[in-house]
Amino acid sequence: MSENRIRHASIHGTMTVDQLVRQMGGCAFGAGRIGAACDILEEMQAQDVLKFFGLSGAMVPAGMRNIISGMIRDGYIDVLVTTGANMVHDIIEGVGGCHEKGSETADDIELKTRHINRIYDVYLNEDYFGCLETKMQRVYEGMDQRTYSIRELMSEIGKNIDDRNSILRSAYECDVPVYCPAVQDSVLGLQAWLFKQANRLNVDAFGDMREFMDLCYGAKRTGALLIGGGVPKNYVLQSMLVTPRGGFDYVIQITMDRAETGGLSGATLDEARSWGKVGEDAKAVQVICDATIALPIMLAAVNERRGRK
Amino acid sequence: MSENRIRHASIHGTMTVDQLVRQMGGCAFGAGRIGAACDILEEMQAQDVLKFFGLSGAMVPAGMRNIISGMIRDGYIDVLVTTGANMVHDIIEGVGGCHEKGSETADDIELKTRHINRIYDVYLNEDYFGCLETKMQRVYEGMDQRTYSIRELMSEIGKNIDDRNSILRSAYECDVPVYCPAVQDSVLGLQAWLFKQANRLNVDAFGDMREFMDLCYGAKRTGALLIGGGVPKNYVLQSMLVTPRGGFDYVIQITMDRAETGGLSGATLDEARSWGKVGEDAKAVQVICDATIALPIMLAAVNERRGRK
Amino acid sequence: MSENRIRHASIHGTMTVDQLVRQMGGCAFGAGRIGAACDILEEMQAQDVLKFFGLSGAMVPAGMRNIISGMIRDGYIDVLVTTGANMVHDIIEGVGGCHEKGSETADDIELKTRHINRIYDVYLNEDYFGCLETKMQRVYEGMDQRTYSIRELMSEIGKNIDDRNSILRSAYECDVPVYCPAVQDSVLGLQAWLFKQANRLNVDAFGDMREFMDLCYGAKRTGALLIGGGVPKNYVLQSMLVTPRGGFDYVIQITMDRAETGGLSGATLDEARSWGKVGEDAKAVQVICDATIALPIMLAAVNERRGRK
Amino acid sequence: MSENRIRHASIHGTMTVDQLVRQMGGCAFGAGRIGAACDILEEMQAQDVLKFFGLSGAMVPAGMRNIISGMIRDGYIDVLVTTGANMVHDIIEGVGGCHEKGSETADDIELKTRHINRIYDVYLNEDYFGCLETKMQRVYEGMDQRTYSIRELMSEIGKNIDDRNSILRSAYECDVPVYCPAVQDSVLGLQAWLFKQANRLNVDAFGDMREFMDLCYGAKRTGALLIGGGVPKNYVLQSMLVTPRGGFDYVIQITMDRAETGGLSGATLDEARSWGKVGEDAKAVQVICDATIALPIMLAAVNERRGRK
Repeated sequence: MSENRIRHASIHGTMTVDQLVRQMGGCAFGAGRIGAACDILEEMQAQDVLKFFGLSGAMVPAGMRNIISGMIRDGYIDVLVTTGANMVHDIIEGVGGCHEKGSETADDIELKTRHINRIYDVYLNEDYFGCLETKMQRVYEGMDQRTYSIRELMSEIGKNIDDRNSILRSAYECDVPVYCPAVQDSVLGLQAWLFKQANRLNVDAFGDMREFMDLCYGAKRTGALLIGGGVPKNYVLQSMLVTPRGGFDYVIQITMDRAETGGLSGATLDEARSWGKVGEDAKAVQVICDATIALPIMLAAVNERRGRK
Repeated sequence: MSENRIRHASIHGTMTVDQLVRQMGGCAFGAGRIGAACDILEEMQAQDVLKFFGLSGAMVPAGMRNIISGMIRDGYIDVLVTTGANMVHDIIEGVGGCHEKGSETADDIELKTRHINRIYDVYLNEDYFGCLETKMQRVYEGMDQRTYSIRELMSEIGKNIDDRNSILRSAYECDVPVYCPAVQDSVLGLQAWLFKQANRLNVDAFGDMREFMDLCYGAKRTGALLIGGGVPKNYVLQSMLVTPRGGFDYVIQITMDRAETGGLSGATLDEARSWGKVGEDAKAVQVICDATIALPIMLAAVNERRGRK
Repeated sequence: MSENRIRHASIHGTMTVDQLVRQMGGCAFGAGRIGAACDILEEMQAQDVLKFFGLSGAMVPAGMRNIISGMIRDGYIDVLVTTGANMVHDIIEGVGGCHEKGSETADDIELKTRHINRIYDVYLNEDYFGCLETKMQRVYEGMDQRTYSIRELMSEIGKNIDDRNSILRSAYECDVPVYCPAVQDSVLGLQAWLFKQANRLNVDAFGDMREFMDLCYGAKRTGALLIGGGVPKNYVLQSMLVTPRGGFDYVIQITMDRAETGGLSGATLDEARSWGKVGEDAKAVQVICDATIALPIMLAAVNERRGRK
Repeated sequence: MSENRIRHASIHGTMTVDQLVRQMGGCAFGAGRIGAACDILEEMQAQDVLKFFGLSGAMVPAGMRNIISGMIRDGYIDVLVTTGANMVHDIIEGVGGCHEKGSETADDIELKTRHINRIYDVYLNEDYFGCLETKMQRVYEGMDQRTYSIRELMSEIGKNIDDRNSILRSAYECDVPVYCPAVQDSVLGLQAWLFKQANRLNVDAFGDMREFMDLCYGAKRTGALLIGGGVPKNYVLQSMLVTPRGGFDYVIQITMDRAETGGLSGATLDEARSWGKVGEDAKAVQVICDATIALPIMLAAVNERRGRK
């Protein structure tokens, strides 16, 4: 009988998450990819692998904040590259705000009159942006006159958030650098604009490049876990265009974007091999799934595996 | 604090699948939908609910065969509506064939020369269709001269498969009717064509309607778990257009098809309410996910809940 | 300079559709696929090519009815394989009903109270199903006691519709056979059930297979234009599993379904080569696009090309 | 007869693009959306509307470069917000490089050995990055010691490209500001890193905000045409969070991203109304289509309409 034979999944009684994932791993399509992704994520936790985490999408509003801050504290993430929006929502929760479950079929004009901003089926009370403003203006006020990099700005914010579950705070405490290339494309940018009406603030758009490249140069082996695509995916992968290493050794991307429209977000990881972003012998898998489903499963399975060691 | 507040998922240590699902249930987007789907699937298991299962996609090649036959044996399915293709692959495994894990980027011309048929990343040796032919010609030979319904044909096949993990065999043993409206749209149809070259075979395309409608009429409450869309989704839901019941009480659809192109497969369950297919007060959720990922999770979680009772 | 160089599209002044398509043809991604599809569709119109048309999705409600009946009358279609639903909506328009433009964000419970059935952003007044019932009961009454094939049933309906724009009428007049494998999966099935409460009606599910296979056997060359996936795609392509011809010579599929979930609807045409459904040297392209956008463009471009000859 | 009746499209003879679009406009699903988008795009060309253009995806490699530079020269674009990648590929063509049509099923390891970088079905010879380096190092060398905004950097590049079809050159000549919030997330960022090894370069990440906000404040009415999502979509729309205007008056987004995963790229334009990014009475439509198909059609149709005036 063939070694490659599909092993039909068997689901009986009470199972742990990794028991389930191992059943899925013998299957094809998405189930097989989840299985492969867990194997790669587990292998990526070796000591000599520098682990990048690319975070796009509205993961914080969706309820993934503690998972991500926990991953930072548990050593799953050495370098975080993310969008301004995820950090905005992280700060909002860090200053006492919260996100609520709503409906994706709500009347948006009516929501507007109730000062509710909608993110698919998540509601956010607009008033929390006032709390964010107070916090951010203070952060900007506390900064020196010198030129900052965006990573330094993220670190300043993390230092000023008093919330163990905060992504920025966790990164600050664990010395995990946070890169946020399009920081101005978020309410952090609008807050900077407000602050700069009357004050000096200089954040060098290219200020992180050297440090980021040095991280890549210095790593023995590298791995990337990419949630969605966007700027974080490209920023993580493009580092390999100039480093002599030969591409990432491990890459997992969780995405629902498709390849056929040609955008980078949905591009296959094979395509990235032609560029040298993903190594020729790299272990790489693209999981076509909503990240709020795939990430918790994968993390729970790998946690379980590591706990058993 | 709001009752609707997003409860950020917490993933630590070894978790059972239902512990994970309950963490996901406090979140939004796909995670929240998985949580809601598990609650509905659990509630659907009440004694007075007639439970329909719509099965499309290549679930058997992917490795979901034992899950589905197990669901039949465990009482999750009272009525099965499926595609000819899934039954073809069920029979192939039932006569000793198997599916293998391959690569979705293989050279298909080369596969053809090796007599391998590809289904995304699954390979199927063409020779197994010979075994299928032997079995099916015998099944057709064993049938009477009378007019059959498709459900009766499915039952005849199930009777002739000696494999506890077979979907058709399990349905046969458990008295679960199997409807397969487009049976001729599969190798079963090609086998019928072959048989009819020299023999009589009459299977009435409309022969199942009365029985199927009577099932719907007779049910106190009804629930549907739909894997993908296609004929199975529509065939299950359309029954409510003529029954006076007022639509399904519970509906879960797992699909990756999108609504905007207007096809029935990707249509929202809200749309189905305008038709009366889904009841006004029905509990319904559409899980936007690869079914090979979502179905195992949901089944494992609900198994665990039922085991605890 | 490379022959393969991307020719950046130039859009200026008033252009005919084919002028636009030829600009798109020098581009990549979807634009390039539209260009390739038009070339194949044009080439497929050669006299010795038997032209199959697979029609799924809600194309009639969307406003594509006249396009399709026009294609039959203009010789683009030799064999039509479709879903019951498209034929139901064709008949509804043929008996005086109409579809209306509505909103995909409507309140479906409220629509239900207004007797409006929604198909994405199309509304259909439920009362038209009454007209359909009158027509269909008469059609069934007019049929003989013998066993019919589904193709013969479709022909009976077409004969009874007095509307030049009707797909079924056009097919009847032009001797284009209409295959509808899952006919019972539609209101035609429900009408058959109603009729069979008190009358005899026998439609052989496998009654079309021989005729359909003979068509494939007899063709010198074959082409398929597939709108969406579903039963029509598979039914058209599977014919090549038993014919000795070696697969379709030309295939165009317009679809938004994706390949990664493993279903046949989204499967690539390369995958179909491993099965021998698409020939090794076939010209084949999959256009990833809403068919209500791609089909009118392609037809207008090819009309223009043929008109110039 | 209802005013809202679906007008089935009629395709006959040789048609101009706008004749086709007007046929599509009477239909539903994607065809109807194309019709609505053309009406909005036409109306947006009124003199008092400030027209934003958000450009993401790999539009330049795909062959849309001349369309976009033409739109700038023809007055369709007052403000351009884009990704670094599109500008990189614009510069590559501007310094003599070209993109070629390849295959999305190529062997990427083999492409790598041939120094070919793949973007879906587009090939790019790696050597062109050498030409880009020469150009960009010269541009950086020519800049003053002062702090630049990203828009000023884009203008510097445009000034230095001698190619009428260049997007950056056209914007430079037509005084259309180009914002590129995540400029460092591209080879422009890698080039800046290289330059900064030995030289000073200071580009303020927040340096564009005031100017960009002033543009929004100053506009009487505003419109946005968004190709894909990503940073350009958010950056354009977020401006309305702080301006007192009440959201965009016209918005068209062409995208294939879906809403259910909660990301901003696929978010509906209705959702944007809850935030005040899109006005309560705004005319807005989301076209679910590959932009390389939808954009050329829409532009050709509106060109034709404007030419007739």
